[in-house]
Amino acid sequence: MATASARLELIALPGFPLVDQGDDLCRLVVEGAARAGVEFQDGDVVVLAQKVVSKAEGRLVDLATVTPSGEAKTLAGQVLKDPRLVELVLRESRRVVRARPHVLIVEHRLGLIMANAGIDQSNIDAGGREMALLLPQDPDASAESLRARLYQASGATVGVVINDSFGRPWRRGTTGTAIGAAGLPALIDRRGDPDLFGRALQITQIGHADEIAAAASLLMGPADEGRPVVLLRGLTWRAPPNPAAALLRPETEDLFR
Amino acid sequence: MATASARLELIALPGFPLVDQGDDLCRLVVEGAARAGVEFQDGDVVVLAQKVVSKAEGRLVDLATVTPSGEAKTLAGQVLKDPRLVELVLRESRRVVRARPHVLIVEHRLGLIMANAGIDQSNIDAGGREMALLLPQDPDASAESLRARLYQASGATVGVVINDSFGRPWRRGTTGTAIGAAGLPALIDRRGDPDLFGRALQITQIGHADEIAAAASLLMGPADEGRPVVLLRGLTWRAPPNPAAALLRPETEDLFR
Repeated sequence: MATASARLELIALPGFPLVDQGDDLCRLVVEGAARAGVEFQDGDVVVLAQKVVSKAEGRLVDLATVTPSGEAKTLAGQVLKDPRLVELVLRESRRVVRARPHVLIVEHRLGLIMANAGIDQSNIDAGGREMALLLPQDPDASAESLRARLYQASGATVGVVINDSFGRPWRRGTTGTAIGAAGLPALIDRRGDPDLFGRALQITQIGHADEIAAAASLLMGPADEGRPVVLLRGLTWRAPPNPAAALLRPETEDLFR
Repeated sequence: MATASARLELIALPGFPLVDQGDDLCRLVVEGAARAGVEFQDGDVVVLAQKVVSKAEGRLVDLATVTPSGEAKTLAGQVLKDPRLVELVLRESRRVVRARPHVLIVEHRLGLIMANAGIDQSNIDAGGREMALLLPQDPDASAESLRARLYQASGATVGVVINDSFGRPWRRGTTGTAIGAAGLPALIDRRGDPDLFGRALQITQIGHADEIAAAASLLMGPADEGRPVVLLRGLTWRAPPNPAAALLRPETEDLFR
């Protein structure tokens, strides 16, 4: 079974401050949990919005410092975006998947297929400067580091998920999606499990961390600086842990790239 | 704001029975809630697995009664699936999107892009007969009907979501996805809303019912006959209600069909 729990609780940690480069996210999470009157327990899952992780890691870039290449300028003309932003997108990407006016979908160097390489220009308070916020350098490593530090701080074995809002083919609207995970199975593989009647299950892999990320997004809202950290309590699983990278479909398996 | 709540609770209704054609889902949901010690409140959201809705609506088909067309036989040879199942898939679909060995992705007549037109062969107890379960005829209407009946039964204005497990391009694993919705915004449109710093938001549409569907899937698990109904309490929204059909990206907007 993927889960044995019958109840889940999601708690947005209240009063989470705006995060700056170098801030200690572990301390901020522990303090936020204390404000919510919550002590971490084994099996709790902490979901953090990508923005706070990126900011703590200093992934904010002043667009004034970016010189667009010729390739970026050409592509910017095609997608009608700021050439400096497009330059950053290209630096963060392996390749362009789709380019249309107002649309730039790339394969991020992490393997994520996403608009604008996940670079965000909203909700950035930068004293008038035009800033862009890149994804964390290695979100799975960021999640694992925070998981280890939360264990040190609380004695509890918690899972950590870093989420971001992703658009999807075929469907309108963004949904919370896992870009980093630690201490839980991001992907649950049930191949071979029988169903209730002993028949082999048709659905064999579950995007577990993506479902966790989506659930947390319901509380964060899209302007996720306001409520960027959500605690999820009551989830249980039997599968071994694996990182969010396990959710990436290799190109050889993919029919839509 | 999409949500103003700081806590969410999800409760899988215990002891939900196996559902047969003609069963009164409203009564079963009310009885399940009573077993959980829950009385419906305004703003509660009830999420039902597609399977129980389909079964109650008599969407089970005995494969022995299906005669595959020549087109179905040819396609079945290509995708290495039962020609009778492929015949049902074609009847339920507008067109084939991708066909490969063991893969048959179609545009369902409802507009959903999905494997096998959502037809399920697992978890069906049919006394030895080979049965296939089709999607509900009109899941948004099914959700609306249940919403209205739950209001009559409980006096509470609840939202209803019908979910199913969908595979995705680019990412491994299925996630819970909304195929029907009533009494809540399936899609939240925030175009024009300012972010925390008064800048226009870059993310303007949220797949709200898909996030609800994914959250509920965490409790249902994929063998969702066991826990097919989940109550979600604590969610608030300010957007007007719209059905799950609002989540369908029109082909003219879609770069990956």
